[in-house]
Amino acid sequence: PGSRQLLRELYPHTGRARIVGVTGNPGCGKSTLVDALVRGYRKAERRVGVVAVDPSSPFSGGAILGDRIRMQRHAVDPGVFIRSLATRGHLGGISRSTDDVVSVLDAMGFDVVIVETVGVGQAEVEIVETAHLAIVVVVPGLGDEVQAMKAGILEVADLLCVNKADRPGAERAVQDLQQMLTLRTDSRPPPPILETVAVSGKGVEELRAALDARLEAGAGSGLWQEWQERRARRRVEELLRESLTRRALGRMPEQELGARIARVARRELDPFTLAEELAGLAPSTDGVRG
Amino acid sequence: PGSRQLLRELYPHTGRARIVGVTGNPGCGKSTLVDALVRGYRKAERRVGVVAVDPSSPFSGGAILGDRIRMQRHAVDPGVFIRSLATRGHLGGISRSTDDVVSVLDAMGFDVVIVETVGVGQAEVEIVETAHLAIVVVVPGLGDEVQAMKAGILEVADLLCVNKADRPGAERAVQDLQQMLTLRTDSRPPPPILETVAVSGKGVEELRAALDARLEAGAGSGLWQEWQERRARRRVEELLRESLTRRALGRMPEQELGARIARVARRELDPFTLAEELAGLAPSTDGVRG
Repeated sequence: PGSRQLLRELYPHTGRARIVGVTGNPGCGKSTLVDALVRGYRKAERRVGVVAVDPSSPFSGGAILGDRIRMQRHAVDPGVFIRSLATRGHLGGISRSTDDVVSVLDAMGFDVVIVETVGVGQAEVEIVETAHLAIVVVVPGLGDEVQAMKAGILEVADLLCVNKADRPGAERAVQDLQQMLTLRTDSRPPPPILETVAVSGKGVEELRAALDARLEAGAGSGLWQEWQERRARRRVEELLRESLTRRALGRMPEQELGARIARVARRELDPFTLAEELAGLAPSTDGVRG
Repeated sequence: PGSRQLLRELYPHTGRARIVGVTGNPGCGKSTLVDALVRGYRKAERRVGVVAVDPSSPFSGGAILGDRIRMQRHAVDPGVFIRSLATRGHLGGISRSTDDVVSVLDAMGFDVVIVETVGVGQAEVEIVETAHLAIVVVVPGLGDEVQAMKAGILEVADLLCVNKADRPGAERAVQDLQQMLTLRTDSRPPPPILETVAVSGKGVEELRAALDARLEAGAGSGLWQEWQERRARRRVEELLRESLTRRALGRMPEQELGARIARVARRELDPFTLAEELAGLAPSTDGVRG
């Protein structure tokens, strides 16, 4: 399609943006924190793009509204671009759409692109893993530390942020996180834990400084190529997965496919054999011969 | 592989189990609720399998421990089987692993298979969508209603359960959910909202009755074939996606692939062209000619 060709052509113009993932449970104040980071980057005269990935549907709509409010705040500033991706559908699709938007912002010359997710499920972990560095946001109390842990998300964190740190239990949250980090089995240095109060801006510049220090250390070392290769590999695999599947499904008319699916549902045909037929690895499972 | 052949052979023996998805934020009491449902099914002399899908890593470990405790409780009862899937990795892989375990339990003759997820992200929504019916669990207060909404998860709910309904705010949570359900654009009947206190068992039998009524109404109508076709289609597409990608990646030696990925990372090659080469749609992007 046309957009694919466009993305292909702008690809050589990408590769400079620092890409930061921000994730955490709904209610942890992610959006407010991202806004505060954006203000900090603008003060430092750096252009910032934000991609807010929300796997919600038109039915819920909350994020879209929030997005509009956020966009209005920065509407007159060409140095800020905020785009909400409220796509549902196959996860690979969401991950690819996110990458496409990040690429466009990268090509447009945004210095920093923040990918913010809603929720902390496996998809969200995968999305922030495509960033160069990931910030995981938790709040004191509410068992959020446990929630973060349960989603296996601590493992992808390069920086941990305890937001709403003026609330009771902030100290405890920091200690819990420190305790949990001692259980990490990999050899990477433990992520620093920073405390912020995003609504007042407290601690946000310190978070941004810690983030930038790591981003620039990475960009100035062999780590940068490693980060870019990780992103490149994911992107290629996602594109491959999608194009191969679409092509294989497209080879069979929908009516024929539907009839075969119905036979799988009735247990007259097994899904492995049908998948092999669609992949061109097995002979036809046409019902006449079935 | 061997397990694939086994799954293929047992496929004709599947198709009878009622498959129920249960999702909701960590801390909403899902596991306790599922345990209470299991006890109810056992009293009704029905065999129950539970697949707890936790996209956490060995690093976190929480769910595995919880799983062991739960398994001990039912250890002497052959009518209960609880299996935790703590897989990480590609989402398609998790979804397929879940389906594999569900198929085995189905073939073993379990009447009901409950697929319970941790977290409420996009992956979790996809996993419960593979079930025949999905229960979404929320708790009063804590903004959980909003969290459920944000993940677009209300749309996949066939039954809504307000757990911990002895807490203040339960009435409000029910009203909020009712309000939100009026915004649904599709034509399906709105899901009933049930209140439970899973720890004491209060309301659980009513929930189970509502669930069973819907499951059996479905199983006794044209809806059953529709449910099974939806499951079959997802399964086939997932298998296809996976096998095609593995095969395409396997055609190129890892060293060659790594060299090309490095070129993509350096922007000397674009990911679309490499994906097309791997898919066999474009000529070699060998560096010599590049």
